[in-house]
Amino acid sequence: MLKLFYSPGSCALASHIALEEAAADYQAVRVNFADNEQRKPEYLKVNPKGRVPALVTDHGILTETPAILVYISQTHPEAALAPLDDPFALARMQSFNSYLCSTVHVAHAHRGRGTRWADEPSSLEDMKRKVPQNVAACFELIEDTMLQGPWVMGERYTVADPYLFTVAGWLKSDGIDIARFPKVADHHGRMHARAAVARTLEQESASA
Amino acid sequence: MLKLFYSPGSCALASHIALEEAAADYQAVRVNFADNEQRKPEYLKVNPKGRVPALVTDHGILTETPAILVYISQTHPEAALAPLDDPFALARMQSFNSYLCSTVHVAHAHRGRGTRWADEPSSLEDMKRKVPQNVAACFELIEDTMLQGPWVMGERYTVADPYLFTVAGWLKSDGIDIARFPKVADHHGRMHARAAVARTLEQESASA
Repeated sequence: MLKLFYSPGSCALASHIALEEAAADYQAVRVNFADNEQRKPEYLKVNPKGRVPALVTDHGILTETPAILVYISQTHPEAALAPLDDPFALARMQSFNSYLCSTVHVAHAHRGRGTRWADEPSSLEDMKRKVPQNVAACFELIEDTMLQGPWVMGERYTVADPYLFTVAGWLKSDGIDIARFPKVADHHGRMHARAAVARTLEQESASA
Repeated sequence: MLKLFYSPGSCALASHIALEEAAADYQAVRVNFADNEQRKPEYLKVNPKGRVPALVTDHGILTETPAILVYISQTHPEAALAPLDDPFALARMQSFNSYLCSTVHVAHAHRGRGTRWADEPSSLEDMKRKVPQNVAACFELIEDTMLQGPWVMGERYTVADPYLFTVAGWLKSDGIDIARFPKVADHHGRMHARAAVARTLEQESASA
C-alpha cells in the first residue's frame, strides 16, 4: 500500500487528488505543520527536505510533486492520467508541471515563506508586496499560452489538472481574483465538480 | 532537426549536453542575454516566458529543463539516458531533477535575479547574503541523501548527471568551494572527462 504524507492546503493536494483519481490503494497521513512536525527527526527520516508531499512505496520513498504525479500515472495505467504513449505530449504535461513547481509555487511562497531567502523584516515585506503581481503574471501566461481547455492538456484530463487546481487554490490568499483568468476559473469549477476532488478535499478538511 | 535555444552558463547547458550525449540531430542557437534578446518579441514567440532553454521539435516547442531532459531520453532510446522501463527509478530521477529546478536553481537565482521577487536594494542585498548558506544546504542534502555515486542514479549515467553538473557549476560564483562536497566534486570531474561534455562546453564558449 502507498502512504502519502501531506499537509492540508499544501502542494501535496495535487498528489492526493491523483491517488484518489487513480483509485489507488493508499493511506494519507497528515503532517502537522502547526507543530512543525515536518522538521522533526521522525519525519526527516521520511523526507530529509522537511517538506511535503512524500510518497512511501514498496520500492522506497518519493518526493517532489512532478515526479510523484508521473509515478502514480505510470503505476495506474488504467486511470489514463498522463499521455504515457506520446513523448511530446508527456513532455508538454511535464513542462506545465515543472513551471508550476519552479516558478508559480516559488512566486507564491515569497508571501509566507520569505525567510527561506532573506532575513530582514523589510525584505520580507518587500517580497510580500511583489507576490500579487508575480503570481498574476504567471497566471496570465497559463491563461494565454498553456491551459488548452477545458483541461490543461485539452480534452484529456491528466495529473497536470489537480496540480493546476492546487496552485490556483492559493490565488485568493495572494489577493488575486481568479475571475481575472476565465479559463483558469472554468477549470477550477470543473475540478470542484469531480467526485475524486470532492472526496480528497473532504478527507483533508476532516483531518485539519 | 531539433533546435535548442540556450545561453552560455545558464541551465540550458543540461539540455545541451543531453543532446550531445544522445548524438541528436540538433542545432544550438545562442540567445544573447547581454542584449536582453530573451525579452524581445522574436524570442517571446519561441518562449513566452522569456527564458532558456527552449527546444524546437517537429511537433512544437518545449520548455523547462526536466521536461526536455526526459523528452530527449525518450526520443533517443539507444542512448539509454534514463531508466524509462522502471517507473520507480524514473521517478527518483525526476525527483532529483525537480529538486534542482524548484529549489537549488531558485536558491542560486536569488543572487543575480533577486529583482524577480523584491524591489528594494536592501532586500536584494539581504537575499544575496543568504545565497551561500542556502545553496550549500541544498548541496549538503544532495551529497548526503541523493547522489548515489559515481553518477546521480548510481552506476548508470542519466540526464540527471548533466543537470547536476550544470547547477554545481554555479557553486564557485556563489562563493562555495565544491571540495566541501566530495561526491559532488568527484561527479564534476567525471563529467568534465566525458567527450560529449567537452564538445558542448567548447561549442558554448566559442559562441560566447
